[in-house]
Amino acid sequence: MATQPELEHPNKAFGWAARDTSGVLSPFNFSRRETGEKDVAFKILYCGICHSDVHMAKNEWGISTYPLVPGHEIVGIVTKVGSKVEKFNVGDKVGVGYMVDSCRSCQNCVDNLENYCPTFTFTCGAKYRDGTSTYGGYSDSLVADENFVVHIPDGLPLEAAAPLLCAGITVYSPLRYYGLDKPGLRIGVVGLGGLGHMAVKFAKAFGAIVTVISTSPNKEKEAIEHLGADSFLISRDQEKMQSALGTLDGIIDTVSANHPILPLIGLLKSHGKLVMVGVPDKPLEIPVFPLILGRKLVAGSNIGGIKETQEMLDFAAKHSVKPDIEVVPVDYVNTAIERLLKADVKYRFVLDIGNTLKPSS
Amino acid sequence: MATQPELEHPNKAFGWAARDTSGVLSPFNFSRRETGEKDVAFKILYCGICHSDVHMAKNEWGISTYPLVPGHEIVGIVTKVGSKVEKFNVGDKVGVGYMVDSCRSCQNCVDNLENYCPTFTFTCGAKYRDGTSTYGGYSDSLVADENFVVHIPDGLPLEAAAPLLCAGITVYSPLRYYGLDKPGLRIGVVGLGGLGHMAVKFAKAFGAIVTVISTSPNKEKEAIEHLGADSFLISRDQEKMQSALGTLDGIIDTVSANHPILPLIGLLKSHGKLVMVGVPDKPLEIPVFPLILGRKLVAGSNIGGIKETQEMLDFAAKHSVKPDIEVVPVDYVNTAIERLLKADVKYRFVLDIGNTLKPSS
Repeated sequence: MATQPELEHPNKAFGWAARDTSGVLSPFNFSRRETGEKDVAFKILYCGICHSDVHMAKNEWGISTYPLVPGHEIVGIVTKVGSKVEKFNVGDKVGVGYMVDSCRSCQNCVDNLENYCPTFTFTCGAKYRDGTSTYGGYSDSLVADENFVVHIPDGLPLEAAAPLLCAGITVYSPLRYYGLDKPGLRIGVVGLGGLGHMAVKFAKAFGAIVTVISTSPNKEKEAIEHLGADSFLISRDQEKMQSALGTLDGIIDTVSANHPILPLIGLLKSHGKLVMVGVPDKPLEIPVFPLILGRKLVAGSNIGGIKETQEMLDFAAKHSVKPDIEVVPVDYVNTAIERLLKADVKYRFVLDIGNTLKPSS
Repeated sequence: MATQPELEHPNKAFGWAARDTSGVLSPFNFSRRETGEKDVAFKILYCGICHSDVHMAKNEWGISTYPLVPGHEIVGIVTKVGSKVEKFNVGDKVGVGYMVDSCRSCQNCVDNLENYCPTFTFTCGAKYRDGTSTYGGYSDSLVADENFVVHIPDGLPLEAAAPLLCAGITVYSPLRYYGLDKPGLRIGVVGLGGLGHMAVKFAKAFGAIVTVISTSPNKEKEAIEHLGADSFLISRDQEKMQSALGTLDGIIDTVSANHPILPLIGLLKSHGKLVMVGVPDKPLEIPVFPLILGRKLVAGSNIGGIKETQEMLDFAAKHSVKPDIEVVPVDYVNTAIERLLKADVKYRFVLDIGNTLKPSS
């Protein structure tokens, strides 16, 4: 019954898709919808490779449908706008992140928190409300409702803007929401990958004193000399962890591997906040006494809303907050994913769609 | 080397003390210090019996010293004030709660959060900074620094004021701090004991719609008809718990028995807050995904500062928030503790010190 991807919509499109749980990507012809009256159509120039693309490509969350075109850190140039589009013009630099739609009526949608709408539409591997498939940014073009499109401000290189749309907003939003954005606060960042390195940069831009907490001693030099962190803690070094007890106002924990949480709670001052943005698969084990005695909290945060994403981009442009990226050609994507799984990237791969995506013959 | 309790200070005092880990209380002669220039001396009239008195009397936290006079919900009438006391006069109705001193220099002390000072002095079973013992309110008199004494406002019966000094402030403070004090919010209260019934009353006074969550179906009538809760959830009733998913803005969890936390997180709306004031001895097991997807938080809270305790008492007087108490004579204390351990009290025992404490012959 399913319509052929190439015939689903009137506009031809081309990208790279996973076909099964191997997650291996290969060239893929599909289609994009006609530009509706509230739609923005754009030529994709860059797309970041996020770890969750790999989860989706391999169906590790059990929600994927194939063929699956990953990519939700998407940047490009507007080629067409619908008759009722108000915020965008042809030629604008734009981005699309994790979402392309939401219910638009729940309290979260009303509050510009579409990212907490229980039925928001993922940018890739999901279904639009009309039942057609969402295909992500490892492709040549996208058509999206203007309410889910953001402006890339001048001064932010397009390739650097891409990872901000997921990795960036995912750490920016909790720093803001949990009040960890005040100058002089002491902020810990657990893990130094795509998210962690952005957390260091945003926290520094907010004026924080930043400590990177990592299992890898060999990241110290990089964290301090290159990323500008103020100090470095090896989480397995009992002595140093002990000497840092009660020193941090907040921690952004970006690590998805299972790891002990109690030592991190110990690093917090009273009223300190530990925010998880990584997703360990085992439940956290949290003794209650330390939470109570220090009025500490453990919380989560999930990307950010569209309005806040725009605010984050504007902040990043103003304060020159940019991810460290390795721009690679599209046909390198499977190798990039292999390297990503070995944490062999500083710190985000970005696909150079505009220059290297070649239509299949 | 230890000085005899009777000889430690110049003023004779009398109370009931535990002598060993049996926790059984019996009459006890000791002494109180001379009223210093910043001290308030008062005759004790009432003292609440809190579960942590039992923990202390039995040394279940491993920090008790014997003989131990419990009691930290203490109310009485001022009999003497030091020359530099500014806020109190002879004849004033006063109270002392969980603390009789703190370091007065750390950030928490500066911020009127003495309850989070890492070295605050417990009202009973601890040592003052001069090395002498703190004896609690199961006794005839107390001498305390005025900075750790509060006024009992007119309109609040003295016997009802006593439990507010621990049970009351312990639930009032997190409702305030975590923003769960706004009219119209939906607040859950887990457990209906000394703390839980106060949480219901304060939440109602703030204008919340209150759900009591309990394992005991037989508490439903009481919760709704007597305490004024708006609804009742039996935590083991899967169907009702399911139908209440995502309905609460915040939960105050007062239960110290080990119990599953994930279902409570499920009851929260996005951005909802679960605050632990009970202390289960096993670590909480908290999956990360629900925290992230709903930007939910799990936190703790420990009593309240002196300034906030005064504010809470004034609020309680203004809004007629009073605990349900059973006033008992002092020589009933061991029976009261036995009944407390069986949850056989609605909802707080208060010792009638003024009328029933008889000095030993």
